[in-house]
Amino acid sequence: MTNPSPIEQLRALLPEADAGAIHAFLADLSPSETPHVLSRLSDDEQTQVLAALPPEEAARLVEELPLSLAATMLHDVSPEAAAAILDRLPSDEQTDLLAHLDAEQSAAVFAQMAPEEAADVQRLRDYPPETAGGLMVTEYLAYPDTALVGEVLADLRTHADRYAQYPVQYAYGVSPQGKLSGVVRLRDLLFSADNQPLQAVLHSQPAAARVDAGLSELRAFFERHRFLAAPILDREGRLVGVVSQSDVEEAAAEQAEHRFLRLSGIVSGEEFRTMPLATRVAGRLAWLAVTMLLSFLAASVVGLFEDTLSKVIALAVFLPVISGMSGNAGNQAIAVTMRELSLGLLKPHELQWVIFKEASVGVINGLVLGIVMSLVAWFWKGNPYLGLAVGGAQALSVLAAACLGGGIPLMLKRFSLDPALASAPILTTITDATGFFLALGLARLMLPLLV
Amino acid sequence: MTNPSPIEQLRALLPEADAGAIHAFLADLSPSETPHVLSRLSDDEQTQVLAALPPEEAARLVEELPLSLAATMLHDVSPEAAAAILDRLPSDEQTDLLAHLDAEQSAAVFAQMAPEEAADVQRLRDYPPETAGGLMVTEYLAYPDTALVGEVLADLRTHADRYAQYPVQYAYGVSPQGKLSGVVRLRDLLFSADNQPLQAVLHSQPAAARVDAGLSELRAFFERHRFLAAPILDREGRLVGVVSQSDVEEAAAEQAEHRFLRLSGIVSGEEFRTMPLATRVAGRLAWLAVTMLLSFLAASVVGLFEDTLSKVIALAVFLPVISGMSGNAGNQAIAVTMRELSLGLLKPHELQWVIFKEASVGVINGLVLGIVMSLVAWFWKGNPYLGLAVGGAQALSVLAAACLGGGIPLMLKRFSLDPALASAPILTTITDATGFFLALGLARLMLPLLV
Repeated sequence: MTNPSPIEQLRALLPEADAGAIHAFLADLSPSETPHVLSRLSDDEQTQVLAALPPEEAARLVEELPLSLAATMLHDVSPEAAAAILDRLPSDEQTDLLAHLDAEQSAAVFAQMAPEEAADVQRLRDYPPETAGGLMVTEYLAYPDTALVGEVLADLRTHADRYAQYPVQYAYGVSPQGKLSGVVRLRDLLFSADNQPLQAVLHSQPAAARVDAGLSELRAFFERHRFLAAPILDREGRLVGVVSQSDVEEAAAEQAEHRFLRLSGIVSGEEFRTMPLATRVAGRLAWLAVTMLLSFLAASVVGLFEDTLSKVIALAVFLPVISGMSGNAGNQAIAVTMRELSLGLLKPHELQWVIFKEASVGVINGLVLGIVMSLVAWFWKGNPYLGLAVGGAQALSVLAAACLGGGIPLMLKRFSLDPALASAPILTTITDATGFFLALGLARLMLPLLV
Repeated sequence: MTNPSPIEQLRALLPEADAGAIHAFLADLSPSETPHVLSRLSDDEQTQVLAALPPEEAARLVEELPLSLAATMLHDVSPEAAAAILDRLPSDEQTDLLAHLDAEQSAAVFAQMAPEEAADVQRLRDYPPETAGGLMVTEYLAYPDTALVGEVLADLRTHADRYAQYPVQYAYGVSPQGKLSGVVRLRDLLFSADNQPLQAVLHSQPAAARVDAGLSELRAFFERHRFLAAPILDREGRLVGVVSQSDVEEAAAEQAEHRFLRLSGIVSGEEFRTMPLATRVAGRLAWLAVTMLLSFLAASVVGLFEDTLSKVIALAVFLPVISGMSGNAGNQAIAVTMRELSLGLLKPHELQWVIFKEASVGVINGLVLGIVMSLVAWFWKGNPYLGLAVGGAQALSVLAAACLGGGIPLMLKRFSLDPALASAPILTTITDATGFFLALGLARLMLPLLV
């Protein structure tokens, strides 16, 4: 007899709906095991888990999970129960989670949330997700800069329980107009005399980020300033939220993962195999349909040279290699450009510099691969001119692919398109067509020497 | 006349080697601009910047930069000067940076470091980079659990300046054997009576992570516990370091970026266009050479069917589409598997489950793409059997690609190979060969119907 797996153990607990037993089981599970086990439950079972737990514990559990999984777990929970769970999450997670529910459920849950929490969400939901506005929380400590240190400390002690949930430990001073006037570490506040005004202990002119700052700007901010959290200001300099460094780094990690998925043709940027089949098929097929169309476009070049091909049938062996290798060479360049863009080492207007840098690599790699291909063709068919045609086509298409691969993401970025989604198909369509055209075109020019 | 760019402005400052002017210029530069400007300086100019600044300021600057750029900046700095800069960095960055210098320089710098700092590095450098050991710092506050609160506070006040540099604000209590006995927030310590033993205010049995915990384990730990930092224990339960949540998330973001680069054929996982040409060419060419070999292997299948191909030359138009589309379908599955692996939603032994899940998507997408291809071939050449051959080959190869793409990373992982590096070339070699074989094999079987 084998031991029941954690998934089976949890399933066995569900019919009883014993909050204590389910909580104890989940608390014993190693943190890295939790998402795995929960993801494998059916929709009904996931609902049962959340329904069995009191809202505080359900909220703690939901916080542990990747966002898409958390949204799936909540999918069949009643709007009232879901709202009770959301009310207990930090404002940024409330907003993210509502955005991940389908529109109808999202509206129903939002309507059931506590007015105070709903107001926070209302304020945050308009900010794009990968900006300071989208990442900030509205749970922070702000006091009028004219308040006395003693008053602030009294407030801190009174609400110690609630504030302990707040992610980071600075207090901010604000002017009567709501402008950020300074920041102090709670620790330093405790060493200060009670009868001083807050103003006197604040570090004035604190470093702060704008509400529309992007991820790479925020990362650079934290690299320079070594804060645990940054105050976020609107255009008028009013304090509107706080972003923690770990939330910024977490968002950067998610962004890199989603970029990788989109580049691989998962259009939505996220797919789990526990999602419904229709969702998974639709997400993948949309992409495949577009690439198939482009692929036919490139392949139609071959159709223009059917007569040449029928006379030198060996060319058909080399065509897929030529197109595959130029695709590979181009994808390397795409990856480097996207990496440099995300680190801020490259600006979208530096197209010329990138093409210059890629051309030097492309010439060398093109020559090496072209010569190898020439030799293979020559020795296989005993015809140096066949080698010249396919090797020349390979060399030129690798060079073109490197330059294009380096440049395409920059151009897409300039037109505000997502380079992760569009770079690879545009690249391979062009390089395939070029490679086919060069190989078959050179062959046609040298036809008397090839047959 | 146009304004000089920031790069030109910085260049103009270098000959004077005026630390104040250079520091003021860099401090004025927006944090996201700094890496861009520095990366475009020549090796000599980068050395001049670091040489002009006092070690404290040079260290602050180096900390702001991506690791590879920081290593490049230090490349031509004398071992003494480099060591003086490194001495002022946290222990995890010292270790990472030494690992990024070339072996000779690394040894020379290490020899010049302050003995205390070198001892930290010595302890940390044996841990793999993406584990708790590789991410932890040795700068943390630990006291014997028998010390009095007053003694601890006195020490905190005496060394306030030094401790302010420490990344997070917990104090740890350790037993005489060095075992972690508890943790307390500095804030809470300040509210405690001076004459109590530390033991009395510590949270005992604190959550902690093992020194060999991997990234996904650490991320799950922080999702559950909401700490800013985790104490790290060796096998015997002794406190050996502290890992902050933001360092974990930063490492996860870097890991995702490097995985993306490796998957795109940048073998080292990192390339900047400011690196020397030879390094860039070598890193890309190594990969292209292997994929070219595999590509010839797959294409040799076409060579086996030259007679069939010469009779139905239209097949040559469809071959690149069939192989391209199955490659695309397989890459989608690879991406989803790698994403699920990194989130812990999938375990390496769940091959069967993945193949089952991929087969259902693969059947549907294969049928759709196969039917489209059949219709294109039928209407173009007016021959339904040609459609049947190429459409059937496309359908089957998409199905095979989805299952293979889902499974290959799991199998590579089981053999401890890097799925990011090897998955795609293995996949496309198999699916190309399968697609060619199916299309040409079916055509040969139906040859009388096709000509």
